[in-house]
Formats: sequence, C-alpha cells, structure tokens
Amino acid sequence: MTTAARNLRDHFEALRANKWFESFVIAIIIISALLIGAKTYEETSRFEQIMGWFDLFITVFFLAELLIRLAAERRPVDFFKNGWNIFDTIIVVASLIPVDDSEMVLLARLLRIFRVLRLVSLIPELRMLMAALLKSIPRMGYVLLLMFIIFYIYAAIGSFLFASVDEFLWGNISIAMLTLFRVATFESWTSIMYGTMEQYPWSWLYYLTFIFLTAFVFLNMMIGIVLEVMQKESAAMALESGEGEAADVKWIRAQVSTLQAQLDRIESKLK
Amino acid sequence: MTTAARNLRDHFEALRANKWFESFVIAIIIISALLIGAKTYEETSRFEQIMGWFDLFITVFFLAELLIRLAAERRPVDFFKNGWNIFDTIIVVASLIPVDDSEMVLLARLLRIFRVLRLVSLIPELRMLMAALLKSIPRMGYVLLLMFIIFYIYAAIGSFLFASVDEFLWGNISIAMLTLFRVATFESWTSIMYGTMEQYPWSWLYYLTFIFLTAFVFLNMMIGIVLEVMQKESAAMALESGEGEAADVKWIRAQVSTLQAQLDRIESKLK
Amino acid sequence: MTTAARNLRDHFEALRANKWFESFVIAIIIISALLIGAKTYEETSRFEQIMGWFDLFITVFFLAELLIRLAAERRPVDFFKNGWNIFDTIIVVASLIPVDDSEMVLLARLLRIFRVLRLVSLIPELRMLMAALLKSIPRMGYVLLLMFIIFYIYAAIGSFLFASVDEFLWGNISIAMLTLFRVATFESWTSIMYGTMEQYPWSWLYYLTFIFLTAFVFLNMMIGIVLEVMQKESAAMALESGEGEAADVKWIRAQVSTLQAQLDRIESKLK
Amino acid sequence: MTTAARNLRDHFEALRANKWFESFVIAIIIISALLIGAKTYEETSRFEQIMGWFDLFITVFFLAELLIRLAAERRPVDFFKNGWNIFDTIIVVASLIPVDDSEMVLLARLLRIFRVLRLVSLIPELRMLMAALLKSIPRMGYVLLLMFIIFYIYAAIGSFLFASVDEFLWGNISIAMLTLFRVATFESWTSIMYGTMEQYPWSWLYYLTFIFLTAFVFLNMMIGIVLEVMQKESAAMALESGEGEAADVKWIRAQVSTLQAQLDRIESKLK
Repeated sequence: MTTAARNLRDHFEALRANKWFESFVIAIIIISALLIGAKTYEETSRFEQIMGWFDLFITVFFLAELLIRLAAERRPVDFFKNGWNIFDTIIVVASLIPVDDSEMVLLARLLRIFRVLRLVSLIPELRMLMAALLKSIPRMGYVLLLMFIIFYIYAAIGSFLFASVDEFLWGNISIAMLTLFRVATFESWTSIMYGTMEQYPWSWLYYLTFIFLTAFVFLNMMIGIVLEVMQKESAAMALESGEGEAADVKWIRAQVSTLQAQLDRIESKLK
Repeated sequence: MTTAARNLRDHFEALRANKWFESFVIAIIIISALLIGAKTYEETSRFEQIMGWFDLFITVFFLAELLIRLAAERRPVDFFKNGWNIFDTIIVVASLIPVDDSEMVLLARLLRIFRVLRLVSLIPELRMLMAALLKSIPRMGYVLLLMFIIFYIYAAIGSFLFASVDEFLWGNISIAMLTLFRVATFESWTSIMYGTMEQYPWSWLYYLTFIFLTAFVFLNMMIGIVLEVMQKESAAMALESGEGEAADVKWIRAQVSTLQAQLDRIESKLK
Repeated sequence: MTTAARNLRDHFEALRANKWFESFVIAIIIISALLIGAKTYEETSRFEQIMGWFDLFITVFFLAELLIRLAAERRPVDFFKNGWNIFDTIIVVASLIPVDDSEMVLLARLLRIFRVLRLVSLIPELRMLMAALLKSIPRMGYVLLLMFIIFYIYAAIGSFLFASVDEFLWGNISIAMLTLFRVATFESWTSIMYGTMEQYPWSWLYYLTFIFLTAFVFLNMMIGIVLEVMQKESAAMALESGEGEAADVKWIRAQVSTLQAQLDRIESKLK
Repeated sequence: MTTAARNLRDHFEALRANKWFESFVIAIIIISALLIGAKTYEETSRFEQIMGWFDLFITVFFLAELLIRLAAERRPVDFFKNGWNIFDTIIVVASLIPVDDSEMVLLARLLRIFRVLRLVSLIPELRMLMAALLKSIPRMGYVLLLMFIIFYIYAAIGSFLFASVDEFLWGNISIAMLTLFRVATFESWTSIMYGTMEQYPWSWLYYLTFIFLTAFVFLNMMIGIVLEVMQKESAAMALESGEGEAADVKWIRAQVSTLQAQLDRIESKLK
C-alpha cells in the first residue's frame, strides 16, 4: 500500500467518524423516507420528475457513503464481517439495478422502503436495542413451538368438525389456523363461536379451552422471560457487589487462623 | 431371564437411546402431523388410498416403537410409572381399534390428531416446559374459583334482569356466563350494554363493575404469581450464594471467642 | 352464666369447629347456588313448589347456622367485630323478610344470589385472597384519580366538539366518559373515530393521544404496583435472612475491640 | 421592602400554607369541573345566566389565589421557576381574555376544561405521580422510534400494495399508519385482512408479521422498563442496607491486621 493510498484511507476514516457527516447521512435517510411517504399521495404525481432526480441523488449518495466506509476499513474483508454492513450493501447495490418492467418497479419501490432500516444500522442506541431484541428470540423458541403444536391440533380438530359449517373460516388446516389466530386476538370470536354452536351446541368448549390454553401458555412464557432476565441481572449484580465483602470475610477467616497459631506458640512459651 | 433375553433388552435399550432413532421417531410424528393437515384439503381425496397406506405404516411404526421402549425397560411395570408413557400407550392402542361406523371415523381422526402431542413427550425441552406449566396450575386454583364465583353471581343477576331484553344472550345462567366471558374479552361488549341500557338505563354500572372486578382480580393474580415464583427463585439463590459467607462469619465468631479465652489464660499467667 | 349455658356454648363451639359441619355448610351454600342457577332455566317452572320448599329449608338452615356461630362466641359482641360475620347476618336476616310485591321478589332473588359470596367467608384460602385484594385497593387510589381526571377532560372536550356529530355517543359528559371507556377497551373505537373524522379530519389526534395517555398511565401503574410489592417483600426477606449475619458481624466487631484492649495490656506488662 | 409589605407577605404565606385555604381551592376547582360537565347537558341552557356568574366568580377567585401565591413568594421571580406555577398562570391569565367571537368561545371553553388539571398541581400525591410519569418518558424514547420505523415501513408497503384494494384504509402513508395502529389494537383487523386477501392471497403474512413484530417489541420494552426500574431500586437498596455491614467487615479486616502486628511484637519479646 502506497503512502498516498494510506493517506486517502485515513481521510476516509476521519470522514466516517465525523459527527457532521454522520448527521448528514441520517438526514439523507430521513429525506429518503419522507420521499417514499410522499410518493403514496396521489397529488404528488406532477412532481414526479423532481422526485426522480431526488431519488437518483440519494441512490448515488448512498453508494458513495458505502464506498467511503468500505475504503476506510483497514482490510476490506472486515467490512463484510458486520451483519449491518452486509445489509447496507445489499440495499444499496440492489437499488442500482435498472428496472423497466412494471412488476420490477414494485420491487424497486419496496427496496427503497427498506432503506429506512438503515437508520437502525446508523444510530447506535437503535442498534443496541435491535441486538437485545434478537438475543431474546431463542428463549422464546420452544414456547413458540408449543404454541404452534396447540394451534395445529386445534386447527386440525376445527377443520374436521366445522368445515361443513363455514368453509371460509374452517375450510382447511391453514385457514383454520388463521381463524384460531383471530380467536386468540379476540377479534369477533363470538360470532365465529355462535356460528358453530348452531350445529355443535357444545363447541363453546372448543373455544374456551383454546383461549384458556393459549392465554395460559402466553402468560407463563411472559413470566418465564421476566424471571430469566432478572435472574441473570441479579446474578451479575451479586457477583459485582458481593465479591468485595465476601473476599474480605475470606481474608479475615484466614487471618484469624494465623492469629490463633501465633497465640498457641505464645501460650506454649509462657508455660 | 435368559442371557438371550437380556441381550435383546440391551439392544432395545441402546436403540432407544440412539440419537438417530430418536430423530427418526420425531420425523415420523411430524409426517403423521402433516398427513392429518393434508387430509383437511379437499383436493387430497384422490390420494386417499396412498394416505391410507401411510396411516397404516405410521400406526404400526408407533406400535413397534412403543414395544421397543417397553422391552428396553428393566421391569415393564416401571414403564407405566411415567405419565407420558401411559399417554403414548393410550394413543397407540386406541388407534389400533378398527373403525367402521362413520361416527367412529371422526373419533379415530381426532385420536390421530393427538399423536402430534407425542412431540411434547419426545423432545426433552418441551417436556420440561410442560412440567413447569402443570406445576403452575395449582397456584392459580383459588383465584380461578374466586373468578368463577364472580362470574356466577353476575351471570345470575344478568339472567334475572336481562333475560327479557335478549333471550339469546341472557336466556339462562350458563348462556349468561358465556356472554360475560365475551364481555371480559371486550368482544362487542358495548353492543350488549347498549341493548340492555334501553330498558335498564343504569345497567352500564353492571358492566363497568364486572370489567373492573375481573380485570382487578386478574391483575392481582398475575402480580401474585410473578412475586411467588420470584420469591422462590431468590430464596433458592440466597441459600446458594449466601451460605458460603454466612458460614464464614459464623466460623469467625466462634474462633474469636476461642482467641479471647486463650488471651485470658495468657494474661492471667503474666500477672 | 350458668354451667348448663356454658356447656351448651362449648357444644356449639365444638360443632362450629367440626370439619364435617363446615363441609356440610359449604355443600348447602353450593346447593343454594345451583338452585339459583336452576331458576334461570324456563323448564324449571313446574318444579317451582319443590324449589320453594328447598329455598325455605336453606333459609332456615342458614339462620340456624348463624345462631350456632353466634352462640359459640364467648361474648356475642365479638361476633359482630368480624366484617364477614356482619355480612353473613345481613344476608341471612334480609332473606327472612317476607316478600309479596313483585318488585320485592326481584330484590329477594338478588339477595339469594349474594348467598354465594358466603363461600368466600367460609373457605379460609378465599378469605385470605380477598383480604390481599382489599389491601391492594388504596395503592391504586391516586392512579385511579389521575385516570378519572384524564377521562373527565377528554370527555368534556369530546362532548363539546363531537356532540353535533353523534348525540348517542357524545351527547353529554357522562355518555362521553362511557364512550371513552369503550375506546380504552379498543371496542369498535375506529368506527367512532371515522365518524368524527368526517367533520373534524384531525380528530384522530384526540383518540391517539387518549389511547397513548391511558395505556401509558396504566402501564406505569402496573409496573409501580409490581415494584412496590416486590420492594416490601425483599425488605421483609432481607430483614429475616440478613439479620443473623449482620448481628454476627456486629458482635465480632465488638469482640475484636476487646481483644485489642487485652493485647495492649499484655504488651505493656511485657515491657 | 417596608415592614408593612413584609407583614403582608407573611400573611399571604401563612394563608397559602393554611390547610383550610388549600381545601377550599381544591373544592373550587372541583366545582369548576362540575360546571364544565353540567354545561354539556342540554337542559342546563336555562340556567345559563347563573352559570355565567359562577364562571366569573371562579375566574376571579383563581386570579386572586394566583396573586396570593405570587405575593407570598420572597422573590416573585422564584414563582416562575416552578413549571406548575407557569401552567397555573397561563390557565388563569388566558381565561381573563374577553371572547366575543363564536370561534373563540370554543377555545375559552377548552381552556376552562384544562382548569381541572390544576387539581394535579395542587394535590402533592398527584404531582409526585405526574413527575414519576414524566421521568419514565425518555427511556421509552428509542423504543418508540423503533416502533415508528416499523409502522412507517409497513405503512409504505401497505399503501403501495393495497391502495388499489381500499382507498379509504390504504390511500396514503398517513392513512395506512392509522390503519396499522387499528390493526395493532386488534380492532376488526381480520375484516381488513380478508379485504386485501381477495386480491393478494398471501397478504395474511403482512398482517401476522406486523402483529408479531409490534407485540414482540412492545413486550420487550415492557420487560426492559420493569428490569431497569428494578435494577435502580435494588441498587439503591443495596447501597442503603449493605453499607453498614460492609463497613463493619472493612473495619474488622483493618483491626485484625493491627492485632497481628501486636502479636508479632509480643512474640518477638518472648523469644
């Protein structure tokens, strides 16, 4: 690497760390988000050309910003070790692909929407929040599996029994699972129940047990997560605060033993 | 027991503990679950015969797997001491009963659905989760009894007063309890209230007190459970971590007493 | 008090404490509750006479049971110091009043319903639960007052602005408060909002701020209560478990001082 | 400042601190609130003149009360350092402005409604509650930002895809955000979903992921806040209770070292 190249890299690194540059990037992302929002208003169609220019500018700016951040890295490979950087690259590169087909226009628009997520990758507090959220997913895994099993069994029973009552709600197992999710959110669940109770007067039992089961499992999951997180926190805290005192007590215990040995010697000499 | 029989048992025990065998059983359960789901789609009726063969295979496989696990036990009686094994046996044996009657076909189908629950008995994490859930039922018992008393009293009042307003919602005490459960889930409760308020303008008091009471008891139950579990956890933790230090302090206290006695003796000798 | 009277009282006291007698009273209460429930079914009208006899028996039995408990008390005045006893007396005495007027029949029926609450006064676990619930009311007081102020202000604004849009929902401040309670339970709140948005396009702000405010205050109250109860619990636990060790440390501190004084004396003698 | 003026100030200070005066002010606020409520009833129009007098009296009374509190302050500038006092002043001064225009009448009425908030500034417990609520806002900030980003992205996608299905629900990005808020409160969300599923059969994925995402972020926020508050509380408690014992242990440790030095000296002398 030549000195010139290294100087350039240092310049890029300084630029990347610059507070003003960062704020400017965030501002551009917000403008890009507002632009997407503005496009959903019909009356904006007459500004279409100006918006097109804006969009082009943002695409080029994001590309430049990405290249600066890539160039600022000591080894370009390190850049792709960060998940957020890969995400940024995909978003930026994908929006460079020219689209003509009307089908693709929709996809291009959706891609532009996901640019808003770059806010999360840029603001450290949001990145931390996101990391905390992602970390909490695995501990929900088995509970969600149990939930899925409950939904599956009830959906199977539901579509066997009630398919003849209402094809639209209980037609097959996947429709029945959607209906059960609706019941779990209490969305007009009684009208569904009254519908099946006409043919199966005891079907209220089906709904009540389902609601109780899901609510019960959900509550227990909630309590379980709160307790698990709390346990970890308090264990960490106990380690931190308790260590000082516990070490002191240990030290005193050892010293008292030495004192005793000393006194034994003194006593024996005095005999 | 002959050596041959013992060898066979050891083989079965090794097979039962085999990771591949376990995964294979789980795979069969999942396939059996998918089969049940597939049956709810109408277009599957032309594959009925293939599905019948599949179903037979699964039934036989589950029987074989149950017998292997039974044979792997040192004493067959031990097998039935585990609740999950009894559950598995009932599911497997019940699906062996041949059904011809159309009424029974429905029951046979339902039984096949419950096979999905065998997933819970096979995956240790789900079994633990289930045990934790079952353990939390008794502490909810008395709160549920109190809830039931509240529902019963309100349902009795409701069916006495409002039966003339809407026979469908307040016809008798069990219908009224179902209606109150609907109110407790906030499902179109205002339309029920507006209905009775036409005849009893003060009936909003009935609904508001009911909603406040149930929400209040429910919240207190939630808080109570969180606190109870937390108390147990922290008591267990305190026992674990605190014991070391507390024991050290006790030991030091005893030793300091001995030191004093020794010093007393030394002092008296020096007089 | 004569010996005969005292003997009688002892008999009553023994009877009151008798497990079988208690279970019998609970059984009678449950039968009385079932009787009330049965009366809500129309087809029961032909058993009316038998039910009348049943009802009379229960009324007399409750009176007898009350008198036994009163007679078992050392001083009858003590009996009325317990809130539950007063409650029982009112329920029993009120159902003795003969009713002829059809208006009063309704009241008599309602009174019979409240007999079910005697279950709470008889089962100790429910009595404890009830006491815990009552104890948690005051700490909710000021939050409820704040909630009421929020509802009142929004209801006043709502009835000023929206009364012309929908008289039925916003006619006056009390109707508006009921409508807001409906909004707080998310019950068809969007149809209310769409209604007012036709005339006041910005009225969605009114609903969103209201929902956020109430949800925010409610959540904070919940968290506050959980924390308050937990703080009390952990303070009580710390007092219990920590005291032993803290006392030991205090004792050691005092003793070490004495040891030092002793050593000072020894050292001075050796000079 | 002359002695007369100082005496007057002392009088005002005593009056401000007087319990009876405070209760009287609270009573006037409550009457003013009831007056506002009463005005929303149509039949009150014939008492309009009496109400006008009442209103004038309350306005003058609030002005007098404000002046008394201002005069009681040692330095008038201090009065405006308290946010609640500024709030009171704005409410009182604004209601002094004479209104003739019918548009302004509405504003004047709204201002009178906000007088009810003076209850919060007067009752210390409510003031404390309010301070606690305000303090909890910042820690919700970034979560709300994340929520807003999720809503914005889904609203953009929703208005691009579904605007052709239902202009009223998905017309532009702000309408779509309102619709999504409605979905988040589970308010008739299935009817919205069934509407879009006719044209986009896979759109249930859009709703389910949205509901799961918002519920998931919301739950994590809740748990996060509970834990954060608890951590602070327990840290404060540990500091308070633990300090005594920790200091004792530290003292003992130091003293045991001195004892050892002393014993060393004694032992060396005895050699």
